[in-house]
Amino acid sequence: MADENGSRVRIVDALLRIMATQGADALTIRTVAGEAGVSVGAVQHHFATKDRLLVAAMTEVNERFRARVAERLEALTSGEERLRVFCREIACIEGSDLTDGIVWVAFAARASTNADIRAIHATDWARTEDVLRHLLADAFPDAAFTTDDAALLLAVLDGIAVARAAEQSDRMTPARAERLIDATLRSLGLAG
Amino acid sequence: MADENGSRVRIVDALLRIMATQGADALTIRTVAGEAGVSVGAVQHHFATKDRLLVAAMTEVNERFRARVAERLEALTSGEERLRVFCREIACIEGSDLTDGIVWVAFAARASTNADIRAIHATDWARTEDVLRHLLADAFPDAAFTTDDAALLLAVLDGIAVARAAEQSDRMTPARAERLIDATLRSLGLAG
Repeated sequence: MADENGSRVRIVDALLRIMATQGADALTIRTVAGEAGVSVGAVQHHFATKDRLLVAAMTEVNERFRARVAERLEALTSGEERLRVFCREIACIEGSDLTDGIVWVAFAARASTNADIRAIHATDWARTEDVLRHLLADAFPDAAFTTDDAALLLAVLDGIAVARAAEQSDRMTPARAERLIDATLRSLGLAG
Repeated sequence: MADENGSRVRIVDALLRIMATQGADALTIRTVAGEAGVSVGAVQHHFATKDRLLVAAMTEVNERFRARVAERLEALTSGEERLRVFCREIACIEGSDLTDGIVWVAFAARASTNADIRAIHATDWARTEDVLRHLLADAFPDAAFTTDDAALLLAVLDGIAVARAAEQSDRMTPARAERLIDATLRSLGLAG
């Protein structure tokens, strides 16, 4: 069991490295086995298909995201600061590592033509909108939100994230992304 | 030459059908040849690699987009209506065909790890921001725009487009997407 978990962890780490550098196109049982230093059989044992590999990558990114964000939010008492940290994380403007955004865009691309992946993605994003709605309400308890406010904010964050991952250019620097988030919060009648 | 163009057109049509239904994963010289009813050699003659196929699909979507939008905009005299038509097209909320959005997300995904594709994508999107900026200025000549206003609007449209293509759920209906665009234009101090 220890060995089995050990190889699973190595495989998932290899998966994320491959996706972040070569993209989902390079995800094959064989490349993953090579990168992880395990046998083809070991990869197949954990993930029988390419779509399972993609789901495993997205699940891992989501779990790391949740753990990291939960820890950061716990350290903050200001509702507005909590909201802003969450926004920056979703928009991929924290740190220089774009792995989360790259895996997310690859997953979204596959979701657009695969019903099983789409079901997972749609559920995840409905939940993300829900989390944003709660963070908005906690940050600004006196504001009256419409149900569209969280959706608008999430659209901005997703638009920034896809630009960050796919363009990697001066069009969407972290500083500009911050200004767009600020402008959106102001437009919702929030923040100064 | 007529034959050569004929087969190229058939190949590009086949490309778009495959991408919209099976996704970029299914783009191989062989599947495209089969779908187009041409020889493998004919596909290779026009597009030697998978990335060339992907670029051809994106180029075709962009050309059809430009032709369709130019025709629609020419028929309109109101600057605001022209801006709104462009926004709806970019956000993939016109009609029920999601092919444009699906090809765009696939292209963005590949751009995130392939420098050649990324260069094309980044140039295209810098231009799109520019077009939006001009449409905003034409629609509201008395408004004072910041350079970020077009970027914010484009982030909203991209966030809507990725949701439309990847979720295909009730979270981002055309009606909701319209409301988010309206809210963004209002937040820029425009429209009623």
